[in-house]
Amino acid sequence: MSHSIAILGASGYTGAELVRLIATHGGMEITALGAHSKAGQTMAEVFPHLRHLDLPVMSKIDEIDFSGIDLCFCALPHKTSQGVIAALPRDLRVVDLSADFRLRDPAAYETWYGNPHTAVEMQGEAVYGLTEFYRAEIRAARLVAGTGCNAATGQYLLRPLISAGVIGLDDIILDLICGVSGAGRSLKENLLHAELSEGVQAYAVGGTHRHLGEFDQEFSALAGRDVRIQFTPHLGPFNRGILATGYVRGEAEAIHAAFAEAYAGEPFLRLLPLGQTPSTHHVRGSNFCDIGVAADRIPGRTVITAALDNLTKGSSGQALQNANLMLGEPETRGLMLAPCYP
Amino acid sequence: MSHSIAILGASGYTGAELVRLIATHGGMEITALGAHSKAGQTMAEVFPHLRHLDLPVMSKIDEIDFSGIDLCFCALPHKTSQGVIAALPRDLRVVDLSADFRLRDPAAYETWYGNPHTAVEMQGEAVYGLTEFYRAEIRAARLVAGTGCNAATGQYLLRPLISAGVIGLDDIILDLICGVSGAGRSLKENLLHAELSEGVQAYAVGGTHRHLGEFDQEFSALAGRDVRIQFTPHLGPFNRGILATGYVRGEAEAIHAAFAEAYAGEPFLRLLPLGQTPSTHHVRGSNFCDIGVAADRIPGRTVITAALDNLTKGSSGQALQNANLMLGEPETRGLMLAPCYP
Amino acid sequence: MSHSIAILGASGYTGAELVRLIATHGGMEITALGAHSKAGQTMAEVFPHLRHLDLPVMSKIDEIDFSGIDLCFCALPHKTSQGVIAALPRDLRVVDLSADFRLRDPAAYETWYGNPHTAVEMQGEAVYGLTEFYRAEIRAARLVAGTGCNAATGQYLLRPLISAGVIGLDDIILDLICGVSGAGRSLKENLLHAELSEGVQAYAVGGTHRHLGEFDQEFSALAGRDVRIQFTPHLGPFNRGILATGYVRGEAEAIHAAFAEAYAGEPFLRLLPLGQTPSTHHVRGSNFCDIGVAADRIPGRTVITAALDNLTKGSSGQALQNANLMLGEPETRGLMLAPCYP
Amino acid sequence: MSHSIAILGASGYTGAELVRLIATHGGMEITALGAHSKAGQTMAEVFPHLRHLDLPVMSKIDEIDFSGIDLCFCALPHKTSQGVIAALPRDLRVVDLSADFRLRDPAAYETWYGNPHTAVEMQGEAVYGLTEFYRAEIRAARLVAGTGCNAATGQYLLRPLISAGVIGLDDIILDLICGVSGAGRSLKENLLHAELSEGVQAYAVGGTHRHLGEFDQEFSALAGRDVRIQFTPHLGPFNRGILATGYVRGEAEAIHAAFAEAYAGEPFLRLLPLGQTPSTHHVRGSNFCDIGVAADRIPGRTVITAALDNLTKGSSGQALQNANLMLGEPETRGLMLAPCYP
Repeated sequence: MSHSIAILGASGYTGAELVRLIATHGGMEITALGAHSKAGQTMAEVFPHLRHLDLPVMSKIDEIDFSGIDLCFCALPHKTSQGVIAALPRDLRVVDLSADFRLRDPAAYETWYGNPHTAVEMQGEAVYGLTEFYRAEIRAARLVAGTGCNAATGQYLLRPLISAGVIGLDDIILDLICGVSGAGRSLKENLLHAELSEGVQAYAVGGTHRHLGEFDQEFSALAGRDVRIQFTPHLGPFNRGILATGYVRGEAEAIHAAFAEAYAGEPFLRLLPLGQTPSTHHVRGSNFCDIGVAADRIPGRTVITAALDNLTKGSSGQALQNANLMLGEPETRGLMLAPCYP
Repeated sequence: MSHSIAILGASGYTGAELVRLIATHGGMEITALGAHSKAGQTMAEVFPHLRHLDLPVMSKIDEIDFSGIDLCFCALPHKTSQGVIAALPRDLRVVDLSADFRLRDPAAYETWYGNPHTAVEMQGEAVYGLTEFYRAEIRAARLVAGTGCNAATGQYLLRPLISAGVIGLDDIILDLICGVSGAGRSLKENLLHAELSEGVQAYAVGGTHRHLGEFDQEFSALAGRDVRIQFTPHLGPFNRGILATGYVRGEAEAIHAAFAEAYAGEPFLRLLPLGQTPSTHHVRGSNFCDIGVAADRIPGRTVITAALDNLTKGSSGQALQNANLMLGEPETRGLMLAPCYP
Repeated sequence: MSHSIAILGASGYTGAELVRLIATHGGMEITALGAHSKAGQTMAEVFPHLRHLDLPVMSKIDEIDFSGIDLCFCALPHKTSQGVIAALPRDLRVVDLSADFRLRDPAAYETWYGNPHTAVEMQGEAVYGLTEFYRAEIRAARLVAGTGCNAATGQYLLRPLISAGVIGLDDIILDLICGVSGAGRSLKENLLHAELSEGVQAYAVGGTHRHLGEFDQEFSALAGRDVRIQFTPHLGPFNRGILATGYVRGEAEAIHAAFAEAYAGEPFLRLLPLGQTPSTHHVRGSNFCDIGVAADRIPGRTVITAALDNLTKGSSGQALQNANLMLGEPETRGLMLAPCYP
Repeated sequence: MSHSIAILGASGYTGAELVRLIATHGGMEITALGAHSKAGQTMAEVFPHLRHLDLPVMSKIDEIDFSGIDLCFCALPHKTSQGVIAALPRDLRVVDLSADFRLRDPAAYETWYGNPHTAVEMQGEAVYGLTEFYRAEIRAARLVAGTGCNAATGQYLLRPLISAGVIGLDDIILDLICGVSGAGRSLKENLLHAELSEGVQAYAVGGTHRHLGEFDQEFSALAGRDVRIQFTPHLGPFNRGILATGYVRGEAEAIHAAFAEAYAGEPFLRLLPLGQTPSTHHVRGSNFCDIGVAADRIPGRTVITAALDNLTKGSSGQALQNANLMLGEPETRGLMLAPCYP
């Protein structure tokens, strides 16, 4: 028996990625697709790569009948999402891919996103969607807030080390390079091929990137004290993938052991042998996150690296993984696609 | 019950693509991997993106025990393949991805490949592996010769038109651009990133590309007379994908209708509405081949276009499709992956 | 003594390319930069790569004082350009990079561009800017209309052959792939990196591309009869460069000889030895156009190829070459930059 | 009057880049080109983009007559270079682009490069070629050792800050991403387009990259004490460019002021306004190095970034700048090319 699924925001990259993954899931049927400006169009018109699938035409969200829907993915932009979700039936399972319910503290939300939250009453209900660390809560949740793609990468790289107490907390540096699909299908000059290909640039330098709100919230809760990391993202000339390089104080062996323990049995976290480094090439199109650890030549310092696909493990794959839990499906269903390489 | 599968030439791109596809097939188990210089290594060492899979270590081919193997994919280089296949058990089902058994006429083989064929006796046994046009023969075959990736693209674009008699046969022009994975994982200067990215060049200009041997053989057989097309391939700065643009004499409507009839019910051939054009982006990582037809401003001339992924539909996906037929599996099993876009 | 130069449309790619070339010209000083929405900004803000140059702030065009300006480059969009140029002082030398004055016949202009021309009286005055073929006229001209980038490539490839009578005129096919900067710095979904990189697609299929207006005009005039070619452009995943592949009836040796004669002494046209093919990589950032000729395996047919950089030889380099002629400078001044490879 | 120039190692990327730059220098004539395996070939065969230049055929190095040569660029691989240079006339000015004479201490050389130096007696004579910091010595030098491309980038980013005493010396972190041409034109699997495009990976993780030898030597000399930085390079999917991101303790304003003072009047160092970040796109093909400074949200920490083109400012442009000084030419001659963007 198939679950009936709605996807709001189907005309964006994370929406299309959900459709791609669900196409071979086997236990889900997409019965409603919601969009704004592209309502009335077919998925084949908006994303021709999906033209072989039998999908509903895109509708305005307020014209969708949610009775009978088992779970709704909400892949809308930040700020839009909170209003839409507040208007959905209160018993509908929702996996939100936006930033709107990631921060539990309304003041933190306002600080990082620049506007007051308009659905404050639902913030308490939302469960943070980093599956491997919130599994039990997600299973029981009605509303799950998917993590940011950079935030997911950084947390896979740092959470086990903070929990195990194997690194210093006062000078963690996270340097990261992200592919362009992380910015969505929006018409911005800096996302044009001619502006991006064949080069690289840092952005949001100096601790201004919004995903720091998630790092602060999660790492501080984990450590039981305030943790503030340094974080510099770069925009790279590729479509999919995030590579994070972390600089920490701690012994490489202990760090590697902490990862090995934390990720033993995890189906999507692939820890590399000590000294090896992951590549975004090797996770493309998949739900895997690869982790590497190497001792630095300076005693007591270690370089840690993580790679994942921002659209899959960093967003829509994570969302499907959470939906599987919420619907009582096997967690890995539809998600064991091998990376697409080369 | 799973079929036991061997892959020879597992250290190349088409070998890795076979593993990627079989990983979610469900009815096949890879029990032997053969390689030359990389024998003794694990697949994870040679292709780290596949490190989550439980696979046999690569062996020298002559050390593989083929008893119990249901089907063997042979993804070895041209010229090597014929000798290896000749030495395999004579009752073992084989899908060859090389060029060695594509040409039925030994003289044609020698003309295009420059050396005499060393397994002439097996050429008659081999079935040409363009699934949609040789389905019955493939089902019954022991040895299937996968088509060239350019040859597949050109045939999807031209066979139905030649069969239906809707185009002139004396001035067919096929202009094509192929991604770099078509050249394999070989160490050649022109395949370096610095030589290839951000530009494009024609090669094998003037009718010297080996896949013309396949075009000549197949189109002539189909037409019942000699057919010689013009064919210029280009090497483009992308990894996966072939786009073919054909210039033919004939009416666009009749051509579109001939495609519609020929490809009705075909699971992997997606015919676009008249006037639209396919993109390699929209087939990446999938087994689909998209087809477009547009009338030219000059009466009686039509421009036809086809896009497929050279590693999937052009090679390993096609091979798996054929293997499914040979093993009595559903033809589409393991092959309904949606394209990976963006 | 330096010529005083104005550039209108300085915030686009062809405007920036003019500034790049003039930066090492030595005999020109940029004294005015005109822009619309970016008026008031510095060039360093709009194009940070040019931040070392001492340039005027961008002004609204109607605030520029053209007295003292020796020559004005107009790098504005089609349709905008004609009105702006009509309003300039009538004795000001102008090199227009838009399409507005390329077609001598107002009816042809309206057919291809979809709107009536608003400066019909100036169309007669304009000289077509394909330097090598209109040198004398350009030297004497007040208003020069730069050719389209695809149109330039196709003409370098076909004019000498039509003039020499060495090819058939009734079945010329021009297949072309162009880099993305040819579409300018405009915010269109299909120009995003995520939509373009790692793939290729045809566009304007079937004889609908506007540069056909130039081909029709020029080839027909040259042949003394109507000539209509088939032309399919493709958009490739690279920023600079056009590669044109032509399919013609004619003997390769005669064709090569016709090129050799036509381009002997031309500083920017590099004819390759018979059988070799040019690459866009080898002209990037330069004013060169490389030409290749190869006999097809079918007797009497020849494949011809040309490569140039659309922003340089196809647009701003060509414009500077013309400006040099109009100002009495050596034609190659500022244009002998070697291609930037890799 | 032109200086007579020899280039050894002309068949590599840095050799070709030297030819590209010298082509518009005006005061240099290339009279000898040396190569190993490609001796006997023309430059047009090895690098077709340079086919318009009138250049000598490549010779075996021991067949070159160095009498009459004013300066010799040596663009050979590490280890090869030292023997070749030792065999050159002792009064010939030499600019070496390899690593062989960068480290003054033979033990340090052996540590980082794994073999004993075979021309130890010349190490003392060699001047370190980071022009802006060794100008007087270079002017007087016979043998100049060009810096490593990563080493140059890191030093432009850190030297003024160490000299001015505005940063802490014990926890400097340098994270860097480099384009693929930095690895040269060598046939290695990881340099293939299919392996590199559309993704990113760290390498030489943990303080094992050879350019650390230069950092240790230079930063320690500058600080008057041992300085050991952490350094992680990444390989990015682009051909030209290095972007370095540095994490330092210090106040952003003081750091910006230190750069402003150190680089005032420097023709090739472009300091951006406080808070802005450079891009490799904006230096491509040029001799510029752009520098950015931004305060971190954590008080007392600053993020600094630098971008340059590894083949130009990081290698051949730097070499030409040094050659200009050695020959009494204006330092910027032939080097004021504006970046090639997009």
